[in-house]
Amino acid sequence: MPTQPSRELEAIPNPHPGRDYEVRCSTPEFTCICPRTGQPDFATVTITYVPGESIVELKSLKLYLWSYRNDGAFHEDVTNRILDDLVAALAPRRMTVLTEWLVRGGIHTSVEASIP
Amino acid sequence: MPTQPSRELEAIPNPHPGRDYEVRCSTPEFTCICPRTGQPDFATVTITYVPGESIVELKSLKLYLWSYRNDGAFHEDVTNRILDDLVAALAPRRMTVLTEWLVRGGIHTSVEASIP
Amino acid sequence: MPTQPSRELEAIPNPHPGRDYEVRCSTPEFTCICPRTGQPDFATVTITYVPGESIVELKSLKLYLWSYRNDGAFHEDVTNRILDDLVAALAPRRMTVLTEWLVRGGIHTSVEASIP
Amino acid sequence: MPTQPSRELEAIPNPHPGRDYEVRCSTPEFTCICPRTGQPDFATVTITYVPGESIVELKSLKLYLWSYRNDGAFHEDVTNRILDDLVAALAPRRMTVLTEWLVRGGIHTSVEASIP
Amino acid sequence: MPTQPSRELEAIPNPHPGRDYEVRCSTPEFTCICPRTGQPDFATVTITYVPGESIVELKSLKLYLWSYRNDGAFHEDVTNRILDDLVAALAPRRMTVLTEWLVRGGIHTSVEASIP
Amino acid sequence: MPTQPSRELEAIPNPHPGRDYEVRCSTPEFTCICPRTGQPDFATVTITYVPGESIVELKSLKLYLWSYRNDGAFHEDVTNRILDDLVAALAPRRMTVLTEWLVRGGIHTSVEASIP
Amino acid sequence: MPTQPSRELEAIPNPHPGRDYEVRCSTPEFTCICPRTGQPDFATVTITYVPGESIVELKSLKLYLWSYRNDGAFHEDVTNRILDDLVAALAPRRMTVLTEWLVRGGIHTSVEASIP
Amino acid sequence: MPTQPSRELEAIPNPHPGRDYEVRCSTPEFTCICPRTGQPDFATVTITYVPGESIVELKSLKLYLWSYRNDGAFHEDVTNRILDDLVAALAPRRMTVLTEWLVRGGIHTSVEASIP
Amino acid sequence: MPTQPSRELEAIPNPHPGRDYEVRCSTPEFTCICPRTGQPDFATVTITYVPGESIVELKSLKLYLWSYRNDGAFHEDVTNRILDDLVAALAPRRMTVLTEWLVRGGIHTSVEASIP
Amino acid sequence: MPTQPSRELEAIPNPHPGRDYEVRCSTPEFTCICPRTGQPDFATVTITYVPGESIVELKSLKLYLWSYRNDGAFHEDVTNRILDDLVAALAPRRMTVLTEWLVRGGIHTSVEASIP
Repeated sequence: MPTQPSRELEAIPNPHPGRDYEVRCSTPEFTCICPRTGQPDFATVTITYVPGESIVELKSLKLYLWSYRNDGAFHEDVTNRILDDLVAALAPRRMTVLTEWLVRGGIHTSVEASIP
Repeated sequence: MPTQPSRELEAIPNPHPGRDYEVRCSTPEFTCICPRTGQPDFATVTITYVPGESIVELKSLKLYLWSYRNDGAFHEDVTNRILDDLVAALAPRRMTVLTEWLVRGGIHTSVEASIP
Repeated sequence: MPTQPSRELEAIPNPHPGRDYEVRCSTPEFTCICPRTGQPDFATVTITYVPGESIVELKSLKLYLWSYRNDGAFHEDVTNRILDDLVAALAPRRMTVLTEWLVRGGIHTSVEASIP
Repeated sequence: MPTQPSRELEAIPNPHPGRDYEVRCSTPEFTCICPRTGQPDFATVTITYVPGESIVELKSLKLYLWSYRNDGAFHEDVTNRILDDLVAALAPRRMTVLTEWLVRGGIHTSVEASIP
Repeated sequence: MPTQPSRELEAIPNPHPGRDYEVRCSTPEFTCICPRTGQPDFATVTITYVPGESIVELKSLKLYLWSYRNDGAFHEDVTNRILDDLVAALAPRRMTVLTEWLVRGGIHTSVEASIP
Repeated sequence: MPTQPSRELEAIPNPHPGRDYEVRCSTPEFTCICPRTGQPDFATVTITYVPGESIVELKSLKLYLWSYRNDGAFHEDVTNRILDDLVAALAPRRMTVLTEWLVRGGIHTSVEASIP
Repeated sequence: MPTQPSRELEAIPNPHPGRDYEVRCSTPEFTCICPRTGQPDFATVTITYVPGESIVELKSLKLYLWSYRNDGAFHEDVTNRILDDLVAALAPRRMTVLTEWLVRGGIHTSVEASIP
Repeated sequence: MPTQPSRELEAIPNPHPGRDYEVRCSTPEFTCICPRTGQPDFATVTITYVPGESIVELKSLKLYLWSYRNDGAFHEDVTNRILDDLVAALAPRRMTVLTEWLVRGGIHTSVEASIP
Repeated sequence: MPTQPSRELEAIPNPHPGRDYEVRCSTPEFTCICPRTGQPDFATVTITYVPGESIVELKSLKLYLWSYRNDGAFHEDVTNRILDDLVAALAPRRMTVLTEWLVRGGIHTSVEASIP
Repeated sequence: MPTQPSRELEAIPNPHPGRDYEVRCSTPEFTCICPRTGQPDFATVTITYVPGESIVELKSLKLYLWSYRNDGAFHEDVTNRILDDLVAALAPRRMTVLTEWLVRGGIHTSVEASIP
């Protein structure tokens, strides 16, 4: 039976919480639905963070991003929602989410949001 | 109301049927479902053809490729099916379909099928 | 009936006004007329901004940039005018407009203007 | 007074008609109007030919390509028309016209036509 | 329990045996042991083939390539052995194996073997 | 007899300890075992440091990195352990370790840790 | 009659003097004579500035750079002289001149000078 | 005293006349004068040949190409003249001259001529 | 004691003499002395061959190429001599030697020789 | 008679000592001998400096770098020695020397040293 997409992000203990270090996860496999046109949009998503007590489990991150596949989501909104969900799950010391979207109407769009 | 995906490919009359010339259409926005794992796969699809009496209407091509989004499809099979469907709709003098898939299990796969 | 070019930029509400985040829109499809020679000029336009209460609606941005197609415009002037128009429409917290022009007389020119 | 676009291609005598040699002219500055949507399209046009008794005068080629700026033209059609016009003006021994269009609906299209 | 490396290549039925088409599988994750120095070697392996009645199952290909990890293998020998094993398992109509090795002693080496 | 992998890092005297200068060592030949799946992982490891009284002997660094070949190691953990071992052996004035891993589950991961 | 090279740089009024913005002009078409060997040298010249009351007219810049064609000029000297002449003509708020020379004696040289 | 440009090409004996082998000489340092506008043109010149009894002495080739610096020369003509001069001096078994010119009027031009 | 450069090329038995396959060895670490100027020249050497009964031992190839370090050698001559020496030592079914030299006098030179 | 390598660096007067500006000289043609193995090493050397009263004469720099050809020199040591020699000869206001070495044992090494 296939794995199911999921909004649950799994946090696992940071093996080196005593040091500030940076983790970067990037995937070109993000797709969602444009709420305006009902057509698919595609993006590369890059998450960069300094972990606190937790790091993200990579398979749960994959399933989390997959869960947007049939969601209507504006570029600006989905970027901030991914950031909010990851911050809620991981309580990182710093985090940035960058989405770089394939061209629509001749325009390349990207959105970058950070905490703090 | 959003446009719906569709398996209908629209053929429009070739404006220069007296000459063999080549048309190439390529998109990085193809996604389907892996029948083995139930997880999304992503590919760049490139269609190269010498039209006969018809050329493909680009919006119908976009909707046709979009229609695979929730389909289970093996790499080798989907490439040949796209070729078969385009040949049936357009009766081109020559045609090649190339699919280049994002890496799975550390392996990059591509499939290329042609007529005649 | 085809869409018409327009100087109207549509502002839509920023879905996350409580956070400073950055949006970048870039297009290689900008063309206007050189006021000195009457010949077409071509540029890539890149707009980077931190939204305030509004974000730009992408289709209106496309039509806005299209509206320069038959306009006489110096490189330095058009860059500042695009910045002024976007600032007036969106009241962003920060904004930069960069235009990168195709070579004329063997010289590549680019212009970058920002607020504040 | 600015130069005017023109459909007239100027042929000048080939300085070495006794030898088959190849000339290539390429420009990223081609734009026309999509007859379906009324919106601008952009392409790089590359012309490769073996001259007969004539070579093309470059300024007349520039004005010729500029003359499409306000024309409605399908990708496949405009490519063949440019080839036909250049063949009529220059009577080359061989010629290929390649147009590579900026992405529309997520699809990159190119068209290549040749004589003989 | 983790998957184990294996020399067994799984052949699955070719879904379109009536047509000659080409499949390419490439991985930068190949490593074996240099029989001369006992030190690890690294290569990108690219397999290109026209299937007959069978195509290779990708997970079994991954495990097969993994099985060389603790094997002593000369560049020229391992390339031909991979080709022999794949030909024995799949009976392809045509096949090429290319190995491109990371630099040793300042020299970049690659080996390419084909049938028929 | 082949060289054996080793966890011993050899420190040799810094020939210019009176000056802060930067040394960078980078290798695409790092591989270890994923503790979750038992399968091989691959990374490029880049070590950048300002030496104190010692610099690293390059052959011992090669053997040290090779010693991870049959080790189970999480991305975040192994990066910090390499940093800890190098700091213990060399007492550098500054040091950064960056690991960039080949894609797993469609996700590219990198980890960067530094002292002080 | 052909245009003549000229040391006269034409300044035209800055259309937006109330804002600090940056203009960049770059050309790979600079050549002068090496005073040591009498042989031609070639460079790419890049001028980046924030205009004050004036911007440079591009045709006069082209003719100014062309005027070095038969001049003997050392790399370091010509870079500073171009900067001095542009500063004298334009009174910019900031300006940088970068020259990047084609290889001589196996050595690539570049020179960058700025005001203030 | 500086070296002077010269139309004399020096031929030196081919050290391996018994074998057909290929020599390629390429330089981005070619400049001449446009006969139409009186302005400088710039090109990369690439000469590829199979020597007969002679090979070209490289310094004389450099001086020969330099001799065009103050010459008026059309793209198509200069390419064929360089080929004619080299063929006269070297009597090669095969030779191709390719000139690739910097953009003029938005158009990139290249010319390629060969014997036999 | 350091390894010494040597003109001896070691041939080892081809492990798969029953099949025509291609081996490519390439190194950017070739240097010799220009017989005309007495100054060092640098090249990338690429050897491509189909082995007969023998393949080249890589360490002996490294020492062989190193042996040119203090040799005066013209580009055309050294390329043919490397080919002759490798053919004498290995009796390959086909072989090509390509040398690509760093720029001298503004000119990039490469030489390619093959048997049969 | 060929030019001889030399440790003498020639300083010539800075033509613009009243301004801080930057000169960069870079060459891929550096080679020396590894003191540990006796085998040749290869590096790209990049020197970046702000001149004081003197600039370096480029031919003397070429001969100076050439003088290491038969010298045994560790990566870290030779980088600092080049910096020391150039500082002694030129008394620059700022200077950085970067050496980037070709791969040894699978490891790419670079060293960067600066004054002040």
